[in-house]
Amino acid sequence: MFMFKAKMEEIAKKKDTKIVLALDFPFISLNSQKSLFHKAKNVIDEVYPHICAVKINHHLVLPLGTFQGVKKLIEIIHEKNLPVIMDCKANDIGATNKVIAEYYYSAGFDAIIANPFVGWDEGLKPIFDMAKKMHRGVILLVYMSHKGAQEGYGQFIYDKGKEEKIAQYVSFARKALKWGADGVVVGATVPEKIKEIHNILGDKIPIYSPGIGIQGGRGISALNAGASYLIVGRSITLAENPNETVKKLIEKLKMS
Amino acid sequence: MFMFKAKMEEIAKKKDTKIVLALDFPFISLNSQKSLFHKAKNVIDEVYPHICAVKINHHLVLPLGTFQGVKKLIEIIHEKNLPVIMDCKANDIGATNKVIAEYYYSAGFDAIIANPFVGWDEGLKPIFDMAKKMHRGVILLVYMSHKGAQEGYGQFIYDKGKEEKIAQYVSFARKALKWGADGVVVGATVPEKIKEIHNILGDKIPIYSPGIGIQGGRGISALNAGASYLIVGRSITLAENPNETVKKLIEKLKMS
Repeated sequence: MFMFKAKMEEIAKKKDTKIVLALDFPFISLNSQKSLFHKAKNVIDEVYPHICAVKINHHLVLPLGTFQGVKKLIEIIHEKNLPVIMDCKANDIGATNKVIAEYYYSAGFDAIIANPFVGWDEGLKPIFDMAKKMHRGVILLVYMSHKGAQEGYGQFIYDKGKEEKIAQYVSFARKALKWGADGVVVGATVPEKIKEIHNILGDKIPIYSPGIGIQGGRGISALNAGASYLIVGRSITLAENPNETVKKLIEKLKMS
Repeated sequence: MFMFKAKMEEIAKKKDTKIVLALDFPFISLNSQKSLFHKAKNVIDEVYPHICAVKINHHLVLPLGTFQGVKKLIEIIHEKNLPVIMDCKANDIGATNKVIAEYYYSAGFDAIIANPFVGWDEGLKPIFDMAKKMHRGVILLVYMSHKGAQEGYGQFIYDKGKEEKIAQYVSFARKALKWGADGVVVGATVPEKIKEIHNILGDKIPIYSPGIGIQGGRGISALNAGASYLIVGRSITLAENPNETVKKLIEKLKMS
């Protein structure tokens, strides 16, 4: 199960970078799909020496197609010895989750992101089973980076087993441990929650932290609070010079 | 906003059917994509007189591609005067949700399904805004049909505003009203919850109920409890004779 986790650690250490590139682009009209593919490829060609993984989301899967354009991008990224994470935030019933996981892993993704809200039985269990079978990873959402996250991830719930009132994200972090996740997502916009969640997970499960830059999160605060990786997207992909941008970000993190 | 809701009502009434076909198929190897497209087309050709809408999920979007194969299927379904729902269970940050909604609506989908757990601000608001702009629908998950749904949808939460302990699905049903959803999803496997949720929504928001057949839900119990539509998938798509199967199901519902 922990092959993906170990691979991430090894690459991050070897290349001395904690940056996961989120390869996100705005909506494009359907005639521009070829240019979108090349934009994505160009960003990878520029920044690959300074990142430890690439995260892909629907910004590319929907216009390019998983097996049409995205599979080719994954091959290009794998040639650079970088793992690729699919940020599908899977939250379906088990039978569908199984199909989703099998397609994404078959397209070449090394890990997928899933939402623990959907539960275990006939929920996320089939994803973990498929990950085990195909030697891939599963990363769980524990607290997202946007404002509305407080409504769900931040709400207080009653834990039936223990008769206690706990935060939803605490419950999710405990499930990540119990289910053996390869990583969790906690927004860089809430460093105090990264700290709290890191206290629960210890060094067993690494924290991936999105929301740097455009969303207002600060990389250094996230790392100091216990995040292992920083997910950075539009600050790099929309930059005039993505290579310079990512290099400056890494320098800044090291100086702090 | 309610154009989609009104369209569904009109078609269901005119054709005297409450069946929404979930066009789901098992994982197929990548060489069989053409046969998957034709399987899907054949099922539509057989059952379209007896259904009021088609729901598509990742079973087709991942292998066929949204703008590669699925767009053509949507055109075929639209020719039969049936609306098409994308069951993407969107649960991302607002900026990404916006991109997801714009791509699915641009591919021709009449409505998309989203998870209210992600909250409103920088969460689902951009999806509702896009739906309004493009005159499409949004359907919210309120209680899913699988066993693990009790972990999240069935948990008790602490409602800050009202200082009360309520079920998560009650909170979601209230949000569906507040946000102006065109429909909600409640599993046919939990008819007692359909009743409770229908009491909250009244006739303002229709309930779509999946989980009939293979998952063990009974259509008649769901309708009696207040569901407006039954989502039926694998019992039809995997049947030897999909047309006979759906006709028998409708007869059975009318006789009860």
